[in-house]
Amino acid sequence: MSLRSKKQSVFTVSEFTLDSGFTLPRVDVAYCTWGSLNTARNNVMLICHPFTGCADVEKWWLPLMDHGKAFDPSRWFIFCANVLGSPFGTTSPLSFNPCTGKPYGPEFPCTTIRDDVRLHRMVLDHLGISQVAVAVGGSMGGMTVLEWQLCFPGFVQRAIPMATCAKQSAWCIAWGEVKRQIISSDRAFKGGYYARDRPPLQGLAAARMAGLLTYRSSASYEDRFGRKIQRGTGCDISTDVKAESKYDTGRPLYAAQSYLRYKGSSFAPTFDANCYLHIVSKMDTHDITRDRVSADLDEDAALFAVLGTMPRRPLIISIESDVLCPPQEQKLLAAGIPEAEFVNIASIAGHDGFLVESELINDAVLKYLRREFSMFY
Amino acid sequence: MSLRSKKQSVFTVSEFTLDSGFTLPRVDVAYCTWGSLNTARNNVMLICHPFTGCADVEKWWLPLMDHGKAFDPSRWFIFCANVLGSPFGTTSPLSFNPCTGKPYGPEFPCTTIRDDVRLHRMVLDHLGISQVAVAVGGSMGGMTVLEWQLCFPGFVQRAIPMATCAKQSAWCIAWGEVKRQIISSDRAFKGGYYARDRPPLQGLAAARMAGLLTYRSSASYEDRFGRKIQRGTGCDISTDVKAESKYDTGRPLYAAQSYLRYKGSSFAPTFDANCYLHIVSKMDTHDITRDRVSADLDEDAALFAVLGTMPRRPLIISIESDVLCPPQEQKLLAAGIPEAEFVNIASIAGHDGFLVESELINDAVLKYLRREFSMFY
Repeated sequence: MSLRSKKQSVFTVSEFTLDSGFTLPRVDVAYCTWGSLNTARNNVMLICHPFTGCADVEKWWLPLMDHGKAFDPSRWFIFCANVLGSPFGTTSPLSFNPCTGKPYGPEFPCTTIRDDVRLHRMVLDHLGISQVAVAVGGSMGGMTVLEWQLCFPGFVQRAIPMATCAKQSAWCIAWGEVKRQIISSDRAFKGGYYARDRPPLQGLAAARMAGLLTYRSSASYEDRFGRKIQRGTGCDISTDVKAESKYDTGRPLYAAQSYLRYKGSSFAPTFDANCYLHIVSKMDTHDITRDRVSADLDEDAALFAVLGTMPRRPLIISIESDVLCPPQEQKLLAAGIPEAEFVNIASIAGHDGFLVESELINDAVLKYLRREFSMFY
Repeated sequence: MSLRSKKQSVFTVSEFTLDSGFTLPRVDVAYCTWGSLNTARNNVMLICHPFTGCADVEKWWLPLMDHGKAFDPSRWFIFCANVLGSPFGTTSPLSFNPCTGKPYGPEFPCTTIRDDVRLHRMVLDHLGISQVAVAVGGSMGGMTVLEWQLCFPGFVQRAIPMATCAKQSAWCIAWGEVKRQIISSDRAFKGGYYARDRPPLQGLAAARMAGLLTYRSSASYEDRFGRKIQRGTGCDISTDVKAESKYDTGRPLYAAQSYLRYKGSSFAPTFDANCYLHIVSKMDTHDITRDRVSADLDEDAALFAVLGTMPRRPLIISIESDVLCPPQEQKLLAAGIPEAEFVNIASIAGHDGFLVESELINDAVLKYLRREFSMFY
């Protein structure tokens, strides 16, 4: 029934000024909703999507959404909006710049997670929503959940951030740089000024492959692939057949290798290199302490000063094997936010565990919702 | 004194047949030695280099080499040879193919770690060496140490493999594939047929950056860089200035990002893309059970059958934070090799810990050598 009740819409803002000071003319926001507002208008569940996600939660978190599940459209009015710079309907490098009549491409201005929150708030205002009961999200979605509570104090009652952090770490910044270098070295990238019909697919695929590995763990790959050899040459994403044929000569194609090629080559045509790089840089800016504390505080004091102002009783979820946003980063959130509940999911799935371990995540979220919002259960 | 006593040489074999069946004509082997053979000719220490290392151990493991240190040329005759396909003196994709008069480039045939061991054995024979007291190496060097003991039973008495594995894991195979895809998408790569003076520096640098991250840990990056911002634009490795200038506009250059650019751009000119890809594929073939057990054994039984045949009393060293070859892979070696001693180095340095934690490694190795080879101390 969740599927039948989904509404997809686009809300347009005539102009929007970014944290950077740059004003975007005519900004579209793609969003989806499920279920309906109750008369008290207090049953709003805000879901924030991760890096390569979109407003349609069913496309990436379906196992949690249905009657009786954590995301239950029969109890909640569920809202999810696509972020700035993502290729899935909100204004991005793919959008036409009204001032030039051409796509922004690499000239699309930097955005921050705070920009997304301020923009999405305009959509909620338009829908007549003046409070959010609970905000949920993993990875970048978790960063967005934290910013919702800090940008609009009191607007979001409860939060469920997962596999996320208070600040983008040096480790994640470094991985972002690797992706930037991979894509910009692709022969087809042309500094971001590539033709729509000749995008840098191999570089984007290679960057995605690197990302996919950082989202997993060595144990999960060993478990699934080991040294299994894949018959055939697998899905060849190279744009240079000669290169591939040379490099594969006399070599087995391992299952892990073939799987990555398949995932990379199937992802690349569905995304966009400029959008990908834009969101990487957006996440680099994530730091909940930025411009919120006096400069004389040291880093830890600044972090705890901000965390201490956040709404009480969040549910903070870690994945034990997460090497991208390791559990200690979520433990830090739990240590600073009043009355935080911390749940560590024992899983070898790595960072992606918040998507992969859907039963464990569903159970933890549902248990929390039943307790914090008993009036709806 | 270790420095003064170093000898660098090249040994040439008229032809060498690889595991693949391909016969290489005229193979050079670059090697270095320190110290001198005792009259019993039983004081040979064999050091095996990692991926980007070379025969000159002083260039990458200097802190362990000197009088009174683990690698002591006053007690040991120390030998290290460069592997096939490495750009540092042994025959590689950079070498001229006598049959064509042109460099092998991407047509250089696949080699295995067993090929390196068989080839280096010829150098030892040439030096009149009929036994090795101890073989030492980390990462790929550790794989080579294991193969020395299995290719020539009884030839190597004791072994010190570090941060290594019995088989290249799915995780490492997957990272190798990412590097392959990064380099082959570089506009300058041309399927490996690039001109010597126009190599794919950016792709090689990006692949190296990915490698460097897998060799470290998130904690080590947080510790060193955090969210520190580097003034200036750092070391720009892009071959497309327009791209960089666009992508860096309005964005800070983070210290972690700047460090990676510097490391990648300083590495690329010192190595070679075809050599890099060759060694990645060489490591993919690593599996000590290959062709050594009957096909009816399951994986674990096969592994323990082979480990059980290995010389007793090795020293097996792990780095606690190693996410590339996690400690459990070395624990497996220790569980299967008779009377193995296992030492876990508590460090946040990650895989590179076997190089970075030189004091702890030196102490562990020296303690082992004093016990196992008391006659030399």
